Amino acid sequence: MRRLFHHWLYPGARLARLVLGEKGLEAELRVVTPWLRDEAFLALNPAGEVPVLVEDSGAVIAGTQAVAEYLDEMHPDPPLLGADPVVRAEVRRLVAWFDTGFRREVTEPLVGQKLALRLMGNGTPDSRALRAGRANLGTHLSYIAWLTEANRWLAGNRLTLADLMAGAHLSLVDYAGDVPWEDHPAAKDWYMVLKSRPCFRTLLADSEPGLRPVKHYADLDF
Amino acid sequence: MRRLFHHWLYPGARLARLVLGEKGLEAELRVVTPWLRDEAFLALNPAGEVPVLVEDSGAVIAGTQAVAEYLDEMHPDPPLLGADPVVRAEVRRLVAWFDTGFRREVTEPLVGQKLALRLMGNGTPDSRALRAGRANLGTHLSYIAWLTEANRWLAGNRLTLADLMAGAHLSLVDYAGDVPWEDHPAAKDWYMVLKSRPCFRTLLADSEPGLRPVKHYADLDF
Repeated sequence: MRRLFHHWLYPGARLARLVLGEKGLEAELRVVTPWLRDEAFLALNPAGEVPVLVEDSGAVIAGTQAVAEYLDEMHPDPPLLGADPVVRAEVRRLVAWFDTGFRREVTEPLVGQKLALRLMGNGTPDSRALRAGRANLGTHLSYIAWLTEANRWLAGNRLTLADLMAGAHLSLVDYAGDVPWEDHPAAKDWYMVLKSRPCFRTLLADSEPGLRPVKHYADLDF
Repeated sequence: MRRLFHHWLYPGARLARLVLGEKGLEAELRVVTPWLRDEAFLALNPAGEVPVLVEDSGAVIAGTQAVAEYLDEMHPDPPLLGADPVVRAEVRRLVAWFDTGFRREVTEPLVGQKLALRLMGNGTPDSRALRAGRANLGTHLSYIAWLTEANRWLAGNRLTLADLMAGAHLSLVDYAGDVPWEDHPAAKDWYMVLKSRPCFRTLLADSEPGLRPVKHYADLDF
């Protein structure tokens, strides 16, 4: 069976799990701890990062975008990028928006300070980073509300990689208990529908010993 | 005519120029200064970043990967990703390698400190960052040598987006005079062939007043 090397704390690996689920594909999940720099894993992916997908043929697919787009090309049903090049470009713009901008402005300051530091066992959270992350998160939730005002999903009326990438990041921030859902009802509506999809179950089962998620993390009615 | 909003200092916008050139496509080049946060430009791309491509139809394509892959989908000759999903995944892994890892480890410490700080007019270069960037660059040049030992180009025997993304970053480091080419003959051979392609002419013409490139920057025989 295909194997997915992943870690719950890495948004790109969360995206890979969502894509596998959305497409109804089985995979053996193998946990790796990227910051420990395991030699055998580095041989698979010299960047040392998850996700890495290994096919039965031995083909190795490494990296967030490479894995997501490879799975979409090999298993096009349901399509997660679409057929129209302009729509595909909009999906890719939004994937980059969340995996670059949201990551830098929200995920790293909040999840990096609250979860990653504790898990890696070094340092105490920087309160300025936490404040900045929370302020930036409000702007991003408003952007999600604005995008979903005209359309059902972020890039149009179909679920795409853009929604899954946003969900991969937001679910981590939610795990840490940092999403003020009550102040952002439109973003909450979008996330509630996303969170209810069967593909999301794997993420909602995440629970690191000693670093449990907030109570409502796995609730579909939060 | 299609318009490309770009800035010479941004690797993703350099990649867009290379892809246009490789495919023989004309575009009106419009310079924007991303760090000045122009309102009209933010309306095109709320991320405020280059590249942004605007088609005659009015379609707006924003972001490094979105522009490069859109151009490859719309103008598939010559193909810059290939037809085999496993090869496409390898190209995307390497694009991310250069646009994420090389960017963080080399371009930001070197080009960020030597060119961007001066251009934006704030601060003096941090010598520790410069030292780290130079040390990391050696590792990356060795990786290029290793990849091109078995194949003509980084992802196989055809030129792909991987080579162009690597060239977009390396040409900036070279502009700053920081590439020890003599210590890395195999990487130099690869870069010499890349630099000689007609698509590269637009990059080699870059020359910011007051911040000129090193002498050999535009020489094909360096």
